[in-house]
Amino acid sequence: MKDNIESMQKLINAFTYLPGVGRKTAERYAYSIINLSQEDVDFFADSLREVKQKIKFCSICGNFTDEDVCEICKSRKSDTICVVKEPKDVVAIEKAKHYSGLYHVLHGTINPLEGKGPNDIKIKELVTRVSGGSVKEIIIATNPDVEGEVTASYIAQLLKPLGVKVSRIAQGISMGSSLQYADEVTLSKAIADRKEM
Amino acid sequence: MKDNIESMQKLINAFTYLPGVGRKTAERYAYSIINLSQEDVDFFADSLREVKQKIKFCSICGNFTDEDVCEICKSRKSDTICVVKEPKDVVAIEKAKHYSGLYHVLHGTINPLEGKGPNDIKIKELVTRVSGGSVKEIIIATNPDVEGEVTASYIAQLLKPLGVKVSRIAQGISMGSSLQYADEVTLSKAIADRKEM
Repeated sequence: MKDNIESMQKLINAFTYLPGVGRKTAERYAYSIINLSQEDVDFFADSLREVKQKIKFCSICGNFTDEDVCEICKSRKSDTICVVKEPKDVVAIEKAKHYSGLYHVLHGTINPLEGKGPNDIKIKELVTRVSGGSVKEIIIATNPDVEGEVTASYIAQLLKPLGVKVSRIAQGISMGSSLQYADEVTLSKAIADRKEM
Repeated sequence: MKDNIESMQKLINAFTYLPGVGRKTAERYAYSIINLSQEDVDFFADSLREVKQKIKFCSICGNFTDEDVCEICKSRKSDTICVVKEPKDVVAIEKAKHYSGLYHVLHGTINPLEGKGPNDIKIKELVTRVSGGSVKEIIIATNPDVEGEVTASYIAQLLKPLGVKVSRIAQGISMGSSLQYADEVTLSKAIADRKEM
């Protein structure tokens, strides 16, 4: 017997496109499709195509949108721009419901190991926005890892001469967590950046 | 802002249909679709539909097939039937390349907790096949868990009066684990060491 029938094999291959999905998991996913209703499978397939077809990136901030300009850029007036690595970071910050300014999505971070320089991410677009003159503060919210820090420093150096305030999201122990489980780097950072009460 | 744009939300929902995929993982999968090529997304969507459309169950053994009778039932002559819980168990045993007989897929096991009795799985069909007279041995290869053992005993009691040899795969497979994840050597050993019931 062929290991699997052809159409099943194709679906297993398709599932391995997903991040972190290997052969075994892909098989498990593919077999489960047979037990879905026809309706659900159609919904699944249609949603896949629809996302690829409709989702574009906002021409101003680079966030997800199904129009030319995203909801946030269209509806908010603000002189603050929060700079993030990926569109899903925007979703995360929006979920926190505390920030009501604009965003700028870099679509990556500076990463020499992967051959990614400042020109490979949307830094130029950020400079253009800031040069427009109506921006007062840039909050850099890239991840607190090596690439994120390097990218943050690079952007700060680039924007400060333009007379804009550049800040970095606070780094320290996450709320609700326990001190004894925090890693050493985070703890050191939290102590160094202590805030007067 | 809407947490996500609508089409993205739909795709995230679709991904939660998959076994073991929660909200977070579904989001990760859905976002990754945007970075796939149009070609890959079409392939993915087509494969989903194709599997649902083409894959049926063999009218003899209950295994996956895209025709009325599966490859194995069509091409093999054998007087031995290996009884398994699910079609993916057939794939697992075939991968071990040690067994060359026929199969019978029960599509479940007796599980009173889930309200599944002997009439809810394909035991009747197995009895009909055995009553045909050309079968000499039944190897019961349900999982070595409580439901699998109960199902095996039930089938053995039912088939022995019909004058067929009934065996159980050897418990080389660790108790409580799942057949599809067993390695090939263990599976081969388990088939070779089957014990008459």
